[in-house]
Amino acid sequence: MNSSRDVSDRTALVALDWGTSSLRAFRMDAEGTVLERRSGGHGIQNLPAPGNAGFQQAFDEICGDWLEDRDVPVIAGGMVGSAQGWKEAPYLACPVRLETLGSAATAMKTETGRTILIAPGVSFETPAGMPDVMRGEEIQIAGVLADRPEWSRHSLLVLPGTHSKWAEVRNGEIVRFSTYMTGELYSVLVRHSILGRLMPQDGKAAPEIATKAFADGVAMARTGSADDLTHQLFAVRTLGLTGRLPTAALGDYLSGLLIGHELVSGLAQISAARAGVPLVLVGENALCERYARAFSDLGSEPAGRIENPAPRGLFWLAVAAGLVQLERSGQYV
Amino acid sequence: MNSSRDVSDRTALVALDWGTSSLRAFRMDAEGTVLERRSGGHGIQNLPAPGNAGFQQAFDEICGDWLEDRDVPVIAGGMVGSAQGWKEAPYLACPVRLETLGSAATAMKTETGRTILIAPGVSFETPAGMPDVMRGEEIQIAGVLADRPEWSRHSLLVLPGTHSKWAEVRNGEIVRFSTYMTGELYSVLVRHSILGRLMPQDGKAAPEIATKAFADGVAMARTGSADDLTHQLFAVRTLGLTGRLPTAALGDYLSGLLIGHELVSGLAQISAARAGVPLVLVGENALCERYARAFSDLGSEPAGRIENPAPRGLFWLAVAAGLVQLERSGQYV
Repeated sequence: MNSSRDVSDRTALVALDWGTSSLRAFRMDAEGTVLERRSGGHGIQNLPAPGNAGFQQAFDEICGDWLEDRDVPVIAGGMVGSAQGWKEAPYLACPVRLETLGSAATAMKTETGRTILIAPGVSFETPAGMPDVMRGEEIQIAGVLADRPEWSRHSLLVLPGTHSKWAEVRNGEIVRFSTYMTGELYSVLVRHSILGRLMPQDGKAAPEIATKAFADGVAMARTGSADDLTHQLFAVRTLGLTGRLPTAALGDYLSGLLIGHELVSGLAQISAARAGVPLVLVGENALCERYARAFSDLGSEPAGRIENPAPRGLFWLAVAAGLVQLERSGQYV
Repeated sequence: MNSSRDVSDRTALVALDWGTSSLRAFRMDAEGTVLERRSGGHGIQNLPAPGNAGFQQAFDEICGDWLEDRDVPVIAGGMVGSAQGWKEAPYLACPVRLETLGSAATAMKTETGRTILIAPGVSFETPAGMPDVMRGEEIQIAGVLADRPEWSRHSLLVLPGTHSKWAEVRNGEIVRFSTYMTGELYSVLVRHSILGRLMPQDGKAAPEIATKAFADGVAMARTGSADDLTHQLFAVRTLGLTGRLPTAALGDYLSGLLIGHELVSGLAQISAARAGVPLVLVGENALCERYARAFSDLGSEPAGRIENPAPRGLFWLAVAAGLVQLERSGQYV
């Protein structure tokens, strides 16, 4: 069986997208095509055992059989390289060339003697001295640009999520970025604050009502003066209390309000830089759809939407690190 | 014993400040002097039994003995009058004369046949149609103005707390107010978001470090462009992650950032109205001290600070409702 696999096996890389709450694995060929994919819940804060043993076990479970009797390289990115990860891969400071994410990755040996290359995160410091960090999103950015090299020259990538990132790319470098806690704010406010109290446990508003409530939240964010968010949030309660909004639509209003604030801030900060610069939405489809609607309400139209570029980014990093030799050259610019 | 009490007993009113998480009771004489005070944890969301029985039991426990063999009136204010309270006392819409809070209160009979007068809340609707509500703070406002009638003509009262209120008073009326979710945001972010992760369970920063971190948070709020809060919040994590702030001071920075946003927004909204109008801080001393520092950093100086005016306000409402005849007239203007 081993010898038969030797002939037909096209596996050239195993890539891991290892975040806080999930772990995804990709078996790829030498052109970056995904031959097989798996995902599980063993993010770095949800390991099957404490410490290094937990990382090793999660690793063996998700891709141990892929590596048995195979000598293929392994690359990993995301929170696995954080201070709480398997091995820390220090942040690179902006401006960061995307290739450097591969060439400056940190090598580590597992307990079974396997070498894994762990990608670094990226840091940015504002002129006023405020630090910002990302870990995992830089790999998605690399993946987007691998397939759409025309955006490498100058683009603005928006990656919605728990901690949304707005990253500006120029000439193949991430030159700056900002984090917005939009997704986490939504989640903690719904689950732990008075704002979630009136929201029904189950049952959604009818689509047209939900869409209208979301747009109302975006409009509220736009009309607010600076710093009004801590006040405007209370409307999520009073609109429900007074029956102005059905309670099933309060979550949509809150979502619109928070995303609206993110977009007003993000667009204001980049307005000088962005005449004619393409704005690209990167992430899960349903969430990108919400962002696209909010951008439209604010007079901006994303030039594109990309879902799940992480495997592509990990492959590109592996190429940059010399782990994989491209069979056809010129694929990446 | 009963007859001896009849001679010396000066009890003229029992007043209850009945909120979400606590219940405070005051036994007062006919001049509003507090003869005895008690407090307990039986707020309306923490009753000893479900439904009306829980209200009755909490009521009997905290002041039953005060009322035994006495025919004194009882007044209550706060969340006890909400839709989730003992009996709903509907909101009065701004502008609201403070006397009306007493005269428009709702009477209810307890299971033991005792009549309680429950104060209404106050509502406000912005010109854009956004509703806001308060319940309990209006009684504190009444208490402040009972002792400081010079602020009745025109003042701005800031009541920091879980849901901070900014209320403008003109000619004895609450004409408008805004709610800021500052205290609740602080609490849910520390307890349930990634921002609390780096904060030590116990151990505070040295006072000068805590004060500096708080001021830095206020300064950050001031320098932000519009709508930056969802971005700026992430600095609470990165400043800790990069060692720029000791983890024990991250809570102070977050406090300064949130209070700063509240103040920048509040001051901007009222700037037109407030040339020469006194700004009054109302609430618990340590919290008012933080607010006073932040106001000072933003170039405003409160004209006064008042702690715990609720019993005074309840007494004044009882007078306005005709429950108590003042022994000396002219005390309230």
